[in-house]
Amino acid sequence: MCQLLGMNCNTPTDICFSFEGFAARGGKTDDHRDGWGIAFFEEKGCQLFIDAKPSIASPIADLVRRYPIHSTHVIAHIRKATQGKIALENCHPFVRELWERYWVFAHNGNLLDFHPEGGEFYRSVGQTDSERAFCVILEVLRQNFPESKPPLDKLYSVLKDVTQSLADKGIFNYLLSDGEHFFTHCSTQLSYIVRQAPFAAAHLIDEDVSVDFQELTRKSDRVAVIATTPLTDNEIWTPIQPGELLVFQDGLPLKFA
Amino acid sequence: MCQLLGMNCNTPTDICFSFEGFAARGGKTDDHRDGWGIAFFEEKGCQLFIDAKPSIASPIADLVRRYPIHSTHVIAHIRKATQGKIALENCHPFVRELWERYWVFAHNGNLLDFHPEGGEFYRSVGQTDSERAFCVILEVLRQNFPESKPPLDKLYSVLKDVTQSLADKGIFNYLLSDGEHFFTHCSTQLSYIVRQAPFAAAHLIDEDVSVDFQELTRKSDRVAVIATTPLTDNEIWTPIQPGELLVFQDGLPLKFA
Repeated sequence: MCQLLGMNCNTPTDICFSFEGFAARGGKTDDHRDGWGIAFFEEKGCQLFIDAKPSIASPIADLVRRYPIHSTHVIAHIRKATQGKIALENCHPFVRELWERYWVFAHNGNLLDFHPEGGEFYRSVGQTDSERAFCVILEVLRQNFPESKPPLDKLYSVLKDVTQSLADKGIFNYLLSDGEHFFTHCSTQLSYIVRQAPFAAAHLIDEDVSVDFQELTRKSDRVAVIATTPLTDNEIWTPIQPGELLVFQDGLPLKFA
Repeated sequence: MCQLLGMNCNTPTDICFSFEGFAARGGKTDDHRDGWGIAFFEEKGCQLFIDAKPSIASPIADLVRRYPIHSTHVIAHIRKATQGKIALENCHPFVRELWERYWVFAHNGNLLDFHPEGGEFYRSVGQTDSERAFCVILEVLRQNFPESKPPLDKLYSVLKDVTQSLADKGIFNYLLSDGEHFFTHCSTQLSYIVRQAPFAAAHLIDEDVSVDFQELTRKSDRVAVIATTPLTDNEIWTPIQPGELLVFQDGLPLKFA
């Protein structure tokens, strides 16, 4: 299987600290060696880096670790292949256009015997269950709302239903965003933390690296970090409950019935 | 306007040498400072780097200059904005899925008063005439061949017609590829060179850099490089004729009636 890392903030923030610990799991502190990827939204634009190399051996991952790209919506993934060969076309995140926005998706899990028919609008390029599930999600959203993005409550309701039907087929933890909203679904394992004033220091689990966020932030900043398992050992992460679909905006989970 | 660089080869090849000269035009030897991008196919997968910074000041462009990514189909672009603000969403190349493959497109030119209706399948995220033209091309291809990629002669004929109708609206030099075929359309300015045995040394126009391809190649290698204007000063580049739509495969232009 794989691991997920996401970030949603109320002000553009770099993910260098979290990515440092996360990327170590791609062959150093864990064995997710079969490729990796990360997507950064800059307003409606989307910067995507993917590589079929392990994240600890990838010059592109090295750039992402060192070069602070500021973004409000980030989705990252390290891969341990279950379905689909080790190849660039099977690296997450996947990107498609819907309602004149880019949508980005990464999945941790495994959907068994999952071979849906090709949609009218969205089809897979690679061979993963993950990309097929992403195409099903977008297809259902577009068939329900052909013209434009609906209000969030309507979108959430349809997304919740299609997510549940997909989660019935196996393990289906995912991150999904269009640069405006940030959806996280927990099927078995996903946690988050919200950092806001008063900021403190944090220490990575996977590398002996600390950062004092108080020195780097303004009082109004708020940052949610979402990950398969916690990235720091001196902060309290909140587990998302199995079956829960959370929507983050401006660094906070929104409340939905 | 902008500049284009493309490469099509019969064996995966890095583009470091050509990109070195090309990237210099993004603020050093020329004034295409409003962003840049490059896409590399690895089989069906597509590696895309884009940045709204000038290519001479971009850490991502620096990585591409130094890190040899081997590919058979490469499309690069440096931007001088005519339509659409300087932003990531307006950086070329643009990518969409069609027939279970990624399609990549970059444009040099300017289409005047060009505001087509949103297609059934493809819509723009950014504000450029270029992305709108790409969406029109894919829409027409998909409407003509809804299920799968047709034989090349049928595809070429439909692409030629839609290209001509778009070129009637202004300047429309472009590069387009799905990782299998490589299409180049010249409206005003586009040249190419085919490098094959016996290989020789080449010297850049924009930087004082030479490379001896004989030391780096095998006898069977063949590489076509396509650019808005020639990149080297000691080789003979072939201008593509205005109105000509060429298809490259395995480093050679194919002949079409």
